[in-house]
Amino acid sequence: MSAASLLFSCSVHVGVSHPKLAAKSSACYLLNQPWSHLKSKTPFGHSGILEKSKLSHKGDGIVWRAGAVQVETAAPSFSVGQKFQLDDVIEAQQFDRETLNAIFEVARSMETIEGNSSGSQMLKGYLMATLFYEPSTRTRLSFESAMKRLGGDVLTTENAREFSSAAKGETLEDTIRTVEGYSDIIVMRHFESGAARRAAATASIPVINAGDGPGQHPTQALLDVYTIEREIGKLDGIRVGLVGDLANGRTVRSLAYLLAKYEDVKIYFVSPEVVKMKDDIKEYLTSKGVEWEESSDLMEVASKCDVVYQTRIQKERFGEKIDLYEAARGKYIVNQDVLKVMQKHAVVMHPLPRLDEITVDVDSDPRAAYFRQAKNGLYIRMALLKVLLLGW
Amino acid sequence: MSAASLLFSCSVHVGVSHPKLAAKSSACYLLNQPWSHLKSKTPFGHSGILEKSKLSHKGDGIVWRAGAVQVETAAPSFSVGQKFQLDDVIEAQQFDRETLNAIFEVARSMETIEGNSSGSQMLKGYLMATLFYEPSTRTRLSFESAMKRLGGDVLTTENAREFSSAAKGETLEDTIRTVEGYSDIIVMRHFESGAARRAAATASIPVINAGDGPGQHPTQALLDVYTIEREIGKLDGIRVGLVGDLANGRTVRSLAYLLAKYEDVKIYFVSPEVVKMKDDIKEYLTSKGVEWEESSDLMEVASKCDVVYQTRIQKERFGEKIDLYEAARGKYIVNQDVLKVMQKHAVVMHPLPRLDEITVDVDSDPRAAYFRQAKNGLYIRMALLKVLLLGW
Amino acid sequence: MSAASLLFSCSVHVGVSHPKLAAKSSACYLLNQPWSHLKSKTPFGHSGILEKSKLSHKGDGIVWRAGAVQVETAAPSFSVGQKFQLDDVIEAQQFDRETLNAIFEVARSMETIEGNSSGSQMLKGYLMATLFYEPSTRTRLSFESAMKRLGGDVLTTENAREFSSAAKGETLEDTIRTVEGYSDIIVMRHFESGAARRAAATASIPVINAGDGPGQHPTQALLDVYTIEREIGKLDGIRVGLVGDLANGRTVRSLAYLLAKYEDVKIYFVSPEVVKMKDDIKEYLTSKGVEWEESSDLMEVASKCDVVYQTRIQKERFGEKIDLYEAARGKYIVNQDVLKVMQKHAVVMHPLPRLDEITVDVDSDPRAAYFRQAKNGLYIRMALLKVLLLGW
Repeated sequence: MSAASLLFSCSVHVGVSHPKLAAKSSACYLLNQPWSHLKSKTPFGHSGILEKSKLSHKGDGIVWRAGAVQVETAAPSFSVGQKFQLDDVIEAQQFDRETLNAIFEVARSMETIEGNSSGSQMLKGYLMATLFYEPSTRTRLSFESAMKRLGGDVLTTENAREFSSAAKGETLEDTIRTVEGYSDIIVMRHFESGAARRAAATASIPVINAGDGPGQHPTQALLDVYTIEREIGKLDGIRVGLVGDLANGRTVRSLAYLLAKYEDVKIYFVSPEVVKMKDDIKEYLTSKGVEWEESSDLMEVASKCDVVYQTRIQKERFGEKIDLYEAARGKYIVNQDVLKVMQKHAVVMHPLPRLDEITVDVDSDPRAAYFRQAKNGLYIRMALLKVLLLGW
Repeated sequence: MSAASLLFSCSVHVGVSHPKLAAKSSACYLLNQPWSHLKSKTPFGHSGILEKSKLSHKGDGIVWRAGAVQVETAAPSFSVGQKFQLDDVIEAQQFDRETLNAIFEVARSMETIEGNSSGSQMLKGYLMATLFYEPSTRTRLSFESAMKRLGGDVLTTENAREFSSAAKGETLEDTIRTVEGYSDIIVMRHFESGAARRAAATASIPVINAGDGPGQHPTQALLDVYTIEREIGKLDGIRVGLVGDLANGRTVRSLAYLLAKYEDVKIYFVSPEVVKMKDDIKEYLTSKGVEWEESSDLMEVASKCDVVYQTRIQKERFGEKIDLYEAARGKYIVNQDVLKVMQKHAVVMHPLPRLDEITVDVDSDPRAAYFRQAKNGLYIRMALLKVLLLGW
Repeated sequence: MSAASLLFSCSVHVGVSHPKLAAKSSACYLLNQPWSHLKSKTPFGHSGILEKSKLSHKGDGIVWRAGAVQVETAAPSFSVGQKFQLDDVIEAQQFDRETLNAIFEVARSMETIEGNSSGSQMLKGYLMATLFYEPSTRTRLSFESAMKRLGGDVLTTENAREFSSAAKGETLEDTIRTVEGYSDIIVMRHFESGAARRAAATASIPVINAGDGPGQHPTQALLDVYTIEREIGKLDGIRVGLVGDLANGRTVRSLAYLLAKYEDVKIYFVSPEVVKMKDDIKEYLTSKGVEWEESSDLMEVASKCDVVYQTRIQKERFGEKIDLYEAARGKYIVNQDVLKVMQKHAVVMHPLPRLDEITVDVDSDPRAAYFRQAKNGLYIRMALLKVLLLGW
């Protein structure tokens, strides 16, 4: 593809390069950096198509950001095009099956990068701002590790709710417009549902939702599906038992949404009566042709499933009804008895933290996948940072 | 200049190189790093004059720190010499007009570095400690971004007031003597006026005041003046309207001090009666020959000014007098009506955070300069870090 | 030594390389990095013996980590072998005299690295997680500076006690298994005695105890002994006066343990009656043949000692007995009078923070070693990070 067609591509996509990202993208071709293999794969055929992205809010005119430098490869492992345009990560539902596969492929390459090299420099020179309006050390450390494992750096704030400016009444939008001037990507956790969407609508740089209140936590949903594929080897045709607090857990709700994108999936809901899966998810699954079933027999479900996905009964949801909490909490425990009936290839997953809903003696069983699941969060986040900052 | 004269320069300035800084300075000549152009400009004429700096408090003898490696260029864009010696940044008043110009010139070069390259390594190997005794996420992130954009790294503490040692009664001086052993430059925010000066008097490494109580916030003042120059194209002869809380805002007070260094400046004060500009500033301006005027007509002032500098009415200053606050707060709002009377080249500035003293619909007007102003804070802080650690 | 014998060594030590550490170790031979002198010293004689280390908790099988790549040098300055295997730093007592000497030798080389170069890249690509369950800014910044001075990077959490997961009831073990997936080494401070040992038993990566409640703070003990050797030039035969709160200070207790490893040491205890050194330490010293003596005469002790080690009377230990605290606090002050009777070569040490138990006018005396002591903490921590991550 010639320079002329490159320009043509740009105009087709109404895209003009943001000077900074363009410069950085060029740099990766000049320097002998890890991702320069993207180029070497296609000595004559590659083209840096600068995709249109989000409108920045500079007062002095309209500026378009290059969201991704896409490369046509001789033998692409997945098709590239408009549908893979990834500007922000806001909710689990935004991903179609093909995009999920593409992300998982990048995540697998991240396992190699994290495990085998003396440290990637892929994101050298990039700054991620972790803007956490409520503390979540696990999620924050996972994102920050992902960024640093790729050679990037981090501006961190653990408790932006006490951010003097937010406390003084500054809007989220104003905060975002300031922080976007200091960084290249924003990872935000917020206490209000919908906050991530508002941030993304404002920001001229990518935003990743690291959880917004009772709303979405899309990277957790992605890592859950990625873990199922890594552990079981497939997603079509799987049998998943969702166990525990299905009413309040955003994790299981998002997971149900994503599983609906695959074929011949069957989901079992096993939960105390007070925290049953809500009707909206059940209706959604039915509308998508996903078979589901409620059961009160964990042993039977465990014997049939590929994945037993246990969750914590959240005490904070029960208020003063401690007796209800205690009853719910003890009802479904994954222990050695459950392991005994589980199939050899099946796994136990859990979003963590766990209390005693999985007994500690389960940990040493090879089917206990929850710490590997936590580690997969690192690979998924590395993959998202890579794709959002450098493109596919 | 020969080696002999180099030594002579050193002895004239009673300066002996601190081993570390000297080593780092040499390194920048050996490596092909961004600031090595300082050398290439002057193939025969350069001289690394090691300036005297602050006395370190090592018990085992007197050690002088090299504050800056100054370079005589063939065609210097500003004269170098003792007056540019910059050891610490403590208050706005410490800068004369020539030093301001020199800092702004460095800041402009920082715009290029931040915007166009794949990341500068100018400050690689340097560590900045952000010692914040009260939280200020905006200021902290701005400094930390500045340091990291130049390849440096950061030790951060968001809430040093709860620093176990400060809580146990350790003096600021003892804290500084410990922290200076771990870092190359200290950026400090403190709740007490004068704390930055005390820290600088103790430290053998540079200290930047990032706000000390009701006292100074010099980097805000610098970025304000820099923004006026960038937006309006000049500082001599400008007309500036200061609007809002002029009694309590350290920002407008520092800005008034700095504007007095320029020629033919006129300042309008527009504020509710309860938060009028205090007499000390008015007297200072008069003594410096700066014209000023109080007005209650924002529309008239806005129509005449190059800069409308709006500020937030600070609720926390009114205590229980909520009615006074509410009256003051609603009095002068920058909105579309104000924009209509403003000149085409004029701009609206604000130190942020804003509440509703500038309506959101102003944001999309090209004359809304406040987010660009926030971004300029990054360039000013990059410039100061560069000058304090590497010299001009 | 041939490849065969290398394999043999591995099997003897039941060690199989962890892919990541092995790759990183190889990298240091390929790249021309600072520690490649380890290789160049022994062109034919070196062998990368991969030592057995801790069992990781991966469910999918047993993985052995390479704790250190040991190198046989032509003229080793200390013997290498199993005894130098350092997996974790948990308590002062774990170190024998030879290991202490070896650590101090590395620490001395760190003084050079920190002071003279443009920044080491020895630990480039490595991530340290500072997991602090109670805030201790001084210790945290010291470790983070150490890591960054060696080119490594840091994931930091200042207040892991409010770690949402710990607050929700997650065990320390589960937290460690998550964090070890994000980092290469964990530096932990905890409010419970024994927590560091539990963390180390769980983690498949090295753990450094940065203080666990009233228990151990081994890096403080190491830096104290290192400072005595640096200041006095020897450890055998020294006379040390421990002054102040000897009952509650873990510092002086650990120091007493370590001093017992040297010959002909004499220790003087000088403390108010309410905070006397406890019997367990006295008995330990006696059992090790260390002479000790209690005294109420600070002046006489100061005149005899090489080291006057002053400590803070900890107000928080006295509860409501403020009068007892005030009496204890004022009893033994190191001031100009004490300096007058001290020998010329002797030094005053203090773990910091200090209140008024050393008067400020002592600071300018060359024998005031406490800020140099704080700086030595940096070198000791650099040394430990280097040894734990790269081996000797």
